[in-house]
Amino acid sequence: MGLRLRPVDTSFYDLFTQSAQHLVGGAELLAEMLSDSSDKAQVAERMRAAEHAADETTHEIVKKVNSTFVTPFDREDIYALGSGLDDVMDMMDEAVDLILLYEVKSLPPELSEQVDVIQRCAELTAASMPRLQSMQSLEDYWIEINRLENAGDRNHRRTLAKLFSGEYPTIEVLKLKDIVESLESAIDAFEKVANTVEQIAVKEG
Amino acid sequence: MGLRLRPVDTSFYDLFTQSAQHLVGGAELLAEMLSDSSDKAQVAERMRAAEHAADETTHEIVKKVNSTFVTPFDREDIYALGSGLDDVMDMMDEAVDLILLYEVKSLPPELSEQVDVIQRCAELTAASMPRLQSMQSLEDYWIEINRLENAGDRNHRRTLAKLFSGEYPTIEVLKLKDIVESLESAIDAFEKVANTVEQIAVKEG
Amino acid sequence: MGLRLRPVDTSFYDLFTQSAQHLVGGAELLAEMLSDSSDKAQVAERMRAAEHAADETTHEIVKKVNSTFVTPFDREDIYALGSGLDDVMDMMDEAVDLILLYEVKSLPPELSEQVDVIQRCAELTAASMPRLQSMQSLEDYWIEINRLENAGDRNHRRTLAKLFSGEYPTIEVLKLKDIVESLESAIDAFEKVANTVEQIAVKEG
Repeated sequence: MGLRLRPVDTSFYDLFTQSAQHLVGGAELLAEMLSDSSDKAQVAERMRAAEHAADETTHEIVKKVNSTFVTPFDREDIYALGSGLDDVMDMMDEAVDLILLYEVKSLPPELSEQVDVIQRCAELTAASMPRLQSMQSLEDYWIEINRLENAGDRNHRRTLAKLFSGEYPTIEVLKLKDIVESLESAIDAFEKVANTVEQIAVKEG
Repeated sequence: MGLRLRPVDTSFYDLFTQSAQHLVGGAELLAEMLSDSSDKAQVAERMRAAEHAADETTHEIVKKVNSTFVTPFDREDIYALGSGLDDVMDMMDEAVDLILLYEVKSLPPELSEQVDVIQRCAELTAASMPRLQSMQSLEDYWIEINRLENAGDRNHRRTLAKLFSGEYPTIEVLKLKDIVESLESAIDAFEKVANTVEQIAVKEG
Repeated sequence: MGLRLRPVDTSFYDLFTQSAQHLVGGAELLAEMLSDSSDKAQVAERMRAAEHAADETTHEIVKKVNSTFVTPFDREDIYALGSGLDDVMDMMDEAVDLILLYEVKSLPPELSEQVDVIQRCAELTAASMPRLQSMQSLEDYWIEINRLENAGDRNHRRTLAKLFSGEYPTIEVLKLKDIVESLESAIDAFEKVANTVEQIAVKEG
């Protein structure tokens, strides 16, 4: 458990920022994957590489916690934040992988709205990580993530209603439902990160 | 880790009882949701509110563990019990949400049997939480929950066989299977809570 | 956290080996389940018994960690390894259960390839557990598990492509997809165990 003295050690914050920047890159690749003209196998390969790089950063965070005697905030919160950011990357990687795996040529336009939400969440998260050091302006971040998650949830429900409307052959619904659910999971994972940041801010404030 | 001295602090037990009472309310809402005549959107809204209230109780439990020096039983077991009860609520909320989301007008009668099992589990759990203080008559509770889980499992298998019998269009099977699986998950979550109570009783006994 | 002194206590290693041997038995039952001529209900019953026995071993591991003052390696790693091995058994049990539940008479031949991978993973894991004591030749084990997981992933993708090819009625795809995904989860669970062993070896090395 961290002491009340705040150590002058910026590198945890650097690692969280690095982790969140991987998410910005991953969200961009997800957007590319949706484009009809993209080389889907190639985008998926770049996503896998991005996911491995994100994994490395997560391992760095774990190693650092294990070897640091006085941490800037509670040890469990550092683990939670590190693994929460890692989970978002895994969800985005899964969405990209399913689009490739299911050989879906043309995706419903509603999916672009979800990917816009995901990109916005990634940018906000990357912008907020450096502010963990000062604990300034974090409330705006988690409030906006909550708003975006609600928007994502409404998109999700609208898309599912469309999938079940009879417009698609059931075999296509089976594939699209998995993809749509992985996008929803990615947005939920961003909200879980924001909840962890809120917990940290409440404890440290 | 708790000391062998048992502190005279009833409020953990009050919080567990409160948490389990949320489950009784949630199970009632789930039963309402199954009725053909219910206003499904309104029942789902009340369920969301109940789930938020249950979340508050879970947060109270976590806060209390974090700020209590001597806990009535192992800290990890308090976390496990608190989050286990929270998981049941989440599963019931998911079942209600899917019934609304998928716009299923009329549900197979088998689902009522599952909801009866869930209501029975909720009542038993709410009745047993106060007994954590005395550790009396807990074995009857977890034995009955195990019996109910087995009954739920048999209902589940029978319902799935019916879903795959050809009686329903495949697109309906896709929706009903998700709902049926969320009911099964809720019953499994009750069993997980009973297992945690059994672990606690064995350690403290 | 374990001290740097290595206690002469073989029984943790015996329990891990026992756990992994349950996986070898479970993988054999999974192979039997795939055979057209097997009595599926009877194989599933033997699998449930094997899963209960594996659960007992996992409980032994947890009890032992809780009652041992100086552990051979980090307490969290012992929990992680014990529960990781337990997760593999649960995944194999789920696969067997789904094959029974869905009354799938004849399974696509591709599934045998996955079960071969699973059997190979189980044998390797059982052979490596005793080596945790000496920390010798563990790298070969996790490298081979990674290679097998990649092979399993390629099988998985090929099988899904076949499922979605139009060769099967959609209602069958719904059932087979669940079975195929549980086999993939079992292989991923073997890889997670190998990752835990690698972490332990890195720390202790």
